[in-house]
Amino acid sequence: MIIVIKPNVSTEQINLFSNELKQQYGVEVNKWIGVQSTVLGLLGDTHRVDIDSIQAQPIVDSIKRVQEPYKKANRKFHPDNTVIDVGGVKIGDGSLPIIAGPCSVESEEQIIEVAKRVKAAGATMLRGGAFKPRTSPYAFQGLRAEGLELLLEAKKETGMPIVTEIMRVSHIDLFEDVDLIQVGARNMQNFELLKELGKLNKPILLKRGLSSTIDETLMSAEYIMSEGNDKVILCERGIRTFEPAYRNTLDISAIPMLKKLTHLPIIVDPSHAAGIPWLIEPLSLAAIGAGADGLIIEVHNCPAKALSDGAQSLTPDQFDTIANKILKAKTALSNI
Amino acid sequence: MIIVIKPNVSTEQINLFSNELKQQYGVEVNKWIGVQSTVLGLLGDTHRVDIDSIQAQPIVDSIKRVQEPYKKANRKFHPDNTVIDVGGVKIGDGSLPIIAGPCSVESEEQIIEVAKRVKAAGATMLRGGAFKPRTSPYAFQGLRAEGLELLLEAKKETGMPIVTEIMRVSHIDLFEDVDLIQVGARNMQNFELLKELGKLNKPILLKRGLSSTIDETLMSAEYIMSEGNDKVILCERGIRTFEPAYRNTLDISAIPMLKKLTHLPIIVDPSHAAGIPWLIEPLSLAAIGAGADGLIIEVHNCPAKALSDGAQSLTPDQFDTIANKILKAKTALSNI
Amino acid sequence: MIIVIKPNVSTEQINLFSNELKQQYGVEVNKWIGVQSTVLGLLGDTHRVDIDSIQAQPIVDSIKRVQEPYKKANRKFHPDNTVIDVGGVKIGDGSLPIIAGPCSVESEEQIIEVAKRVKAAGATMLRGGAFKPRTSPYAFQGLRAEGLELLLEAKKETGMPIVTEIMRVSHIDLFEDVDLIQVGARNMQNFELLKELGKLNKPILLKRGLSSTIDETLMSAEYIMSEGNDKVILCERGIRTFEPAYRNTLDISAIPMLKKLTHLPIIVDPSHAAGIPWLIEPLSLAAIGAGADGLIIEVHNCPAKALSDGAQSLTPDQFDTIANKILKAKTALSNI
Amino acid sequence: MIIVIKPNVSTEQINLFSNELKQQYGVEVNKWIGVQSTVLGLLGDTHRVDIDSIQAQPIVDSIKRVQEPYKKANRKFHPDNTVIDVGGVKIGDGSLPIIAGPCSVESEEQIIEVAKRVKAAGATMLRGGAFKPRTSPYAFQGLRAEGLELLLEAKKETGMPIVTEIMRVSHIDLFEDVDLIQVGARNMQNFELLKELGKLNKPILLKRGLSSTIDETLMSAEYIMSEGNDKVILCERGIRTFEPAYRNTLDISAIPMLKKLTHLPIIVDPSHAAGIPWLIEPLSLAAIGAGADGLIIEVHNCPAKALSDGAQSLTPDQFDTIANKILKAKTALSNI
Repeated sequence: MIIVIKPNVSTEQINLFSNELKQQYGVEVNKWIGVQSTVLGLLGDTHRVDIDSIQAQPIVDSIKRVQEPYKKANRKFHPDNTVIDVGGVKIGDGSLPIIAGPCSVESEEQIIEVAKRVKAAGATMLRGGAFKPRTSPYAFQGLRAEGLELLLEAKKETGMPIVTEIMRVSHIDLFEDVDLIQVGARNMQNFELLKELGKLNKPILLKRGLSSTIDETLMSAEYIMSEGNDKVILCERGIRTFEPAYRNTLDISAIPMLKKLTHLPIIVDPSHAAGIPWLIEPLSLAAIGAGADGLIIEVHNCPAKALSDGAQSLTPDQFDTIANKILKAKTALSNI
Repeated sequence: MIIVIKPNVSTEQINLFSNELKQQYGVEVNKWIGVQSTVLGLLGDTHRVDIDSIQAQPIVDSIKRVQEPYKKANRKFHPDNTVIDVGGVKIGDGSLPIIAGPCSVESEEQIIEVAKRVKAAGATMLRGGAFKPRTSPYAFQGLRAEGLELLLEAKKETGMPIVTEIMRVSHIDLFEDVDLIQVGARNMQNFELLKELGKLNKPILLKRGLSSTIDETLMSAEYIMSEGNDKVILCERGIRTFEPAYRNTLDISAIPMLKKLTHLPIIVDPSHAAGIPWLIEPLSLAAIGAGADGLIIEVHNCPAKALSDGAQSLTPDQFDTIANKILKAKTALSNI
Repeated sequence: MIIVIKPNVSTEQINLFSNELKQQYGVEVNKWIGVQSTVLGLLGDTHRVDIDSIQAQPIVDSIKRVQEPYKKANRKFHPDNTVIDVGGVKIGDGSLPIIAGPCSVESEEQIIEVAKRVKAAGATMLRGGAFKPRTSPYAFQGLRAEGLELLLEAKKETGMPIVTEIMRVSHIDLFEDVDLIQVGARNMQNFELLKELGKLNKPILLKRGLSSTIDETLMSAEYIMSEGNDKVILCERGIRTFEPAYRNTLDISAIPMLKKLTHLPIIVDPSHAAGIPWLIEPLSLAAIGAGADGLIIEVHNCPAKALSDGAQSLTPDQFDTIANKILKAKTALSNI
Repeated sequence: MIIVIKPNVSTEQINLFSNELKQQYGVEVNKWIGVQSTVLGLLGDTHRVDIDSIQAQPIVDSIKRVQEPYKKANRKFHPDNTVIDVGGVKIGDGSLPIIAGPCSVESEEQIIEVAKRVKAAGATMLRGGAFKPRTSPYAFQGLRAEGLELLLEAKKETGMPIVTEIMRVSHIDLFEDVDLIQVGARNMQNFELLKELGKLNKPILLKRGLSSTIDETLMSAEYIMSEGNDKVILCERGIRTFEPAYRNTLDISAIPMLKKLTHLPIIVDPSHAAGIPWLIEPLSLAAIGAGADGLIIEVHNCPAKALSDGAQSLTPDQFDTIANKILKAKTALSNI
């Protein structure tokens, strides 16, 4: 970390400040005195240094981080890819698991039929919303606890591990048999929830917030990991921009950038990124090209009747075709 | 609500769909058959209509809302300004209450000293963070329950109502004596928390999310109100844009736009919007010009030692000067 | 186009307005009278209808376009892909031409060496900046006319068609022997320049502006086409968002969306989108997955000495490897 | 400027690089050798240093500017406000001139009537579009040269200085009698146009681009100033964000920030920022609170018939009321 001191600050003040930094954070402080300004260089483990608190010092002009603020999620300290086992399915090992299923669980028949169809098409995990974060309090909020039970039924029936979203700390017990617990984009900085999930020994799927930076996403992963749970899978699902042609803008560059910065697996959600079924195929192929570790795709047995987000779902027949192309593309690109 | 049907859909299908809409939502459906396309107009109370579900119908081309999706927050159904009493201080009555205090409560001396200073300068409510949402798990997370107690001490000492942020449903009991419970920008769409706060009979300060639209902000207010709690105060605190010169971009247009759309009071947080102390004065004066119902400003008795966000705080001396200007500007502009 | 009339407008006023619309734009106007509001539907060719002017009518509440505002660029009226011949190289025919070369032309040796190297690696067109749009007036502005001559030398030497940017109408004559004239992102809405380029019979490479929507990009293409020049190639080169990890955010979804909306070819510029050399490979593979018609990549024979934008350039050795992967990926994905 | 060198670079390479920097830019280079990394500090006049070229060096990790990249526009080197005389009207002297008039000049009667009305209401300059940058080639493009003549008529008739937009270098001669030449948001980085305007001895109104940063805006001013023309007035007119409730988002913080960074006057355009007439009043009052040096407001004698952008214009009657409030607010706030 490099700290630029304002002009005309006395040597005494600078020394006082340096000593405080040493004591508070256990770092080495080097001083470089220029003609116009003095620069301090902090050496050692600076990830606990509170950048806001330093910026607040009246003698500080500006700060430049050299080290990343995350440690457990940082590839520098963990060069190998983390491979996470979700109910027998590996994520992060170079394969391309596809998670598929409806936005919302609606009935036993629905979820079991969709589960069977997506399994047949090549998906290896089942997704389905039980607790649904909806912008409107008047919209369908999910079958909640009952939805979880139906998912577990579908798991029994098909053997597929299940993925579903949690929205509240007090629900954690209900999620005991869920294989992969999802934290949605709107809760990416629900730090109290992250901390509690960090105490579990269970994989967590952390979706990037709509306007969260890559660094913030990694800091949210760090919240979970700092409590002891290393099983974090990141998910790029589109960011908010000025473009109205699609619901969100898939940040494809985030995939290689995250692969470089962290050892955690990164999957892509083309359904939420686009909000338009026919965009799912090209965005999935793009995600493979960019190096994604998996895909999560919405499939509904009758999109026209979906109680939520049907507009972005594929039919099982459409999914058959697309899953087939996705798996072929993965193989083709693995061999170049 | 206007629904444009795709070309080449049969009259039978359109009638079937119209009937479903009538039955499911209790609305009237008018049909206008053009040469190229058919348009359906929904009449009646459409705020419960699930726009995603309709968009999902394969025969639907696109939808245009005519009515707003919020009802209890909507000025159309509640033309008069809502005035909210926060421990004796009115918000929304044309006055300009100033909420001031440190980002984090750090000690009894600190909070009591700041409380006395800001009261003397003209503030009528005390803010202070006990539970702090920090991007990094390694940063100071607030004194938590102890911080709440210190705030209550400062309230006893000065008689000022207190404002502080809640981060978790299970903490609600701890907030019993808090006068105004704040929901932070990162939790604006923590719908489970909003629903529980909707069951209280206590004012809620709802901050706009960093990339939330005005409609989404009002839908989050609607979550609280739909559970029975009408005491919602909105807060514009800056949105995320591409501009790096300040931490966030204060969306000044949101103030008059919200005043038109809703009857709820709107306050402005120039400290978080800017992240730079010297911008607080001009942004506060701008907020008054735009019609804000109040201001929330960070003041610290020693910004250089603040454990969080000090960089954006004023000293009490600076606040004296600014509060004086703010109150004079309010009076001056009220008389034009 | 659907026009929602405000409540409480008299039938007479509505009829007057309808008649004006018919006369001014030659469209049919259908009227649908609801209980709360009246809706007008415009039929016929609405692309000349001035939406701002209609929105300005005091009786108009809001407008919804059903047809796109562009006509010559619209795939609906030209279902087949447009294939553009650039000095013998086809773009838009399903192949994946690679345009490569330095950001700036710096010397005869430089441009000829780079040209030979990129040709050997599989590139089929040469790019190089002669007139350079730089944010700072103090930065290197390109060799200008001399740079164009050096590019023409390299064309003679290698037989590759050349691509270079124009910044001013009065330079058009200088570009007579340029095979593909580039309009940069900053000039995407320099309408006077677009109109003049529309009078040429020469391919134009139109880069999307940093914060231009897809519709605006197509309207800028329409400016060129409306003057008679149909040879427009679009280029996605990253948009501006809040994310600081890369210079711009490649909008990968724009590729399939543009392919659906227009018949014009779309190429991708991963160098400018990322601003980081190691991101060029994954972004190029993603672009192929998303269906791009070509790539434009910066290559410099000595990135460390480039007079502009060197930071985003590959060395010729790096380009050898990447071009090889790109071409293999294109073949692999063409066969799935 | 601070340059962080990558780890494991030899002392020899670092020295070589330092010497190059000294020779190329005439700066002093200080070296600070840390345990993990070496940092170079550049002293002297660094505004000509090409940051992209340095970033391209393979041994460079990252760069931090300490000095601003603009010099002539920089308040550090010109602490007093620049006051610009536009045909007798001063901008930047603490007063609040209002520029008003229609989006487009449409006829002699129209422009003269509007001119008289806005003058009577307190405006001191007349705006009106002759050359209009329209998104669609099919929309009204302005009366062009004829529009300029009509503006000059209105100037003769009322004595008000006139402001109008230029779109092309070859039109400069036509603008000889224009008092203040406007560069629109879409041309803010039309560097060839800026350079030519820099050769005039005439005030230039430079509008901020839709997604231009504050630094980029100042660099565009620097383009004009570096050619010798110091008479640059900046204009904040709203930036592009995700918020759909208004056409653009007025960046109110840009006003005090620009006032701090530059000595040039800053005016605000609430009409284009909002695109909605009733927002003009609150945004104008906000702009005064934030410290704006002037306002530019669209007024049309019959908004419903405006050939462009009528939707955002006030009627002269509405302008009477608003101009009155604006001038009272300016006086009121000047006295606090």
